[in-house]
Amino acid sequence: MKQPTILITNDDGIFAPGIRKLIEIARTMGKVVVVAPDSAMSGMSHAITVKDPLRLRKIAEEENYIEYSCSGTPVDSMKLGEKIVVTDKPDIVLSGINHGSNASVNIVYSGTMAAAMEANIDGIPAIGFSLLDYSHDADFSGVDDVVRTIILNVLENGLPEGVCLNVNIPAVKKEEIKGIKVCRQSKGRWEEEFDARKDPHDRDYYWLTGYFKNGDTDKDTDSWALANNYVSVVPVHFDLTAHKAISSIKKWKM
Amino acid sequence: MKQPTILITNDDGIFAPGIRKLIEIARTMGKVVVVAPDSAMSGMSHAITVKDPLRLRKIAEEENYIEYSCSGTPVDSMKLGEKIVVTDKPDIVLSGINHGSNASVNIVYSGTMAAAMEANIDGIPAIGFSLLDYSHDADFSGVDDVVRTIILNVLENGLPEGVCLNVNIPAVKKEEIKGIKVCRQSKGRWEEEFDARKDPHDRDYYWLTGYFKNGDTDKDTDSWALANNYVSVVPVHFDLTAHKAISSIKKWKM
Repeated sequence: MKQPTILITNDDGIFAPGIRKLIEIARTMGKVVVVAPDSAMSGMSHAITVKDPLRLRKIAEEENYIEYSCSGTPVDSMKLGEKIVVTDKPDIVLSGINHGSNASVNIVYSGTMAAAMEANIDGIPAIGFSLLDYSHDADFSGVDDVVRTIILNVLENGLPEGVCLNVNIPAVKKEEIKGIKVCRQSKGRWEEEFDARKDPHDRDYYWLTGYFKNGDTDKDTDSWALANNYVSVVPVHFDLTAHKAISSIKKWKM
Repeated sequence: MKQPTILITNDDGIFAPGIRKLIEIARTMGKVVVVAPDSAMSGMSHAITVKDPLRLRKIAEEENYIEYSCSGTPVDSMKLGEKIVVTDKPDIVLSGINHGSNASVNIVYSGTMAAAMEANIDGIPAIGFSLLDYSHDADFSGVDDVVRTIILNVLENGLPEGVCLNVNIPAVKKEEIKGIKVCRQSKGRWEEEFDARKDPHDRDYYWLTGYFKNGDTDKDTDSWALANNYVSVVPVHFDLTAHKAISSIKKWKM
């Protein structure tokens, strides 16, 4: 195979340690183009910028490597990378490595996974990677083998049409990782709580907070795999149709 | 049935004609609580505000009616409505009526549908409504019967667990609407183009633009229904797992 062109983005911003690790791994595998948000964009989901124009800023350029920051969201960055920076279609898009879980329902809020899904909508194989540690100083030193193995498999086998991968890695030592499990998204959810406060002018404001509740203990889920020190790989698509519900709703009197 | 509590939001902002029409219809059907963004939030998808606190502003209060604007996204507004404004769990969440289509792949970028899906994650029946006219002056005068019929059906029949509805209405005269079709999301996509310009300081900037391409002409899709003057109703869920791809990816050597 010719040297692949690898387009990389994330949602924690271009200077986050997670994307730095992903760049380091990818540069051993092909020509790398990075276009990532100039600031942290967690929780941006699939947001796109339609009211303002977007800007790119070149950060670095070396042989087989170019890096830009983008003023927009993760999805904006992926799009600009694909359409403006990379002249040929990239062979693969990588997003992450996210600081924190995108397993279970977290995928819905995730800019990391939205960028991968956007690539997928455009017909490019894509993988979103996340490590289960939210901190800026998360330890990415043990992820190399897992990340490389999954990228190589996608480059070799391709992905079914309309499918990308959501990969989550437990935050444990490399030796403790038991293997890689292909699974489904678990049915967890966030129980939101708002922290209500008063500002100095006695007006109310609210911080969004909450905790994750996993109500789905089946062993074929990403939540189970991660709790048991497996890397979870969930194939993901952007067809949101609840196909099984169509026949019952067709019976309604409308 | 007791008078239902109806929570309403949108992504075009609280003063958009589309939400005003939805409020007008809902007020004939139950107790109405409105919490909607204080400005237009198109393309915000499932974004949530984590870096800044959120604020609510009371706009109106009458018998069985209360209305707040919210400084956050559509999903933030839905959450604040559910947790802070409505003391009991709402019986149903309505989002829209969006100015412009949320059929096909548009659902992925849509704040209107994200708010409905967020309600759904929290176990509340939810419907997102859209009219296929992007203009601020879109004509909502013909939608009353369709909107009321679908709300009544959801209140009467409920929805399967984890399922909400994506309803799109063709922008034609009421008499021209042929009926309501339950369908699947079509496999269309946006072909993005960036409009590259120079600012007065000779620096590049880019406007995101593009056109919709429907590569899916099957008659069981929302795109087909709408092109043929039917209202489309797509049952939608937030399980993004591509279940059919699991077995083939399990065969990889990882």
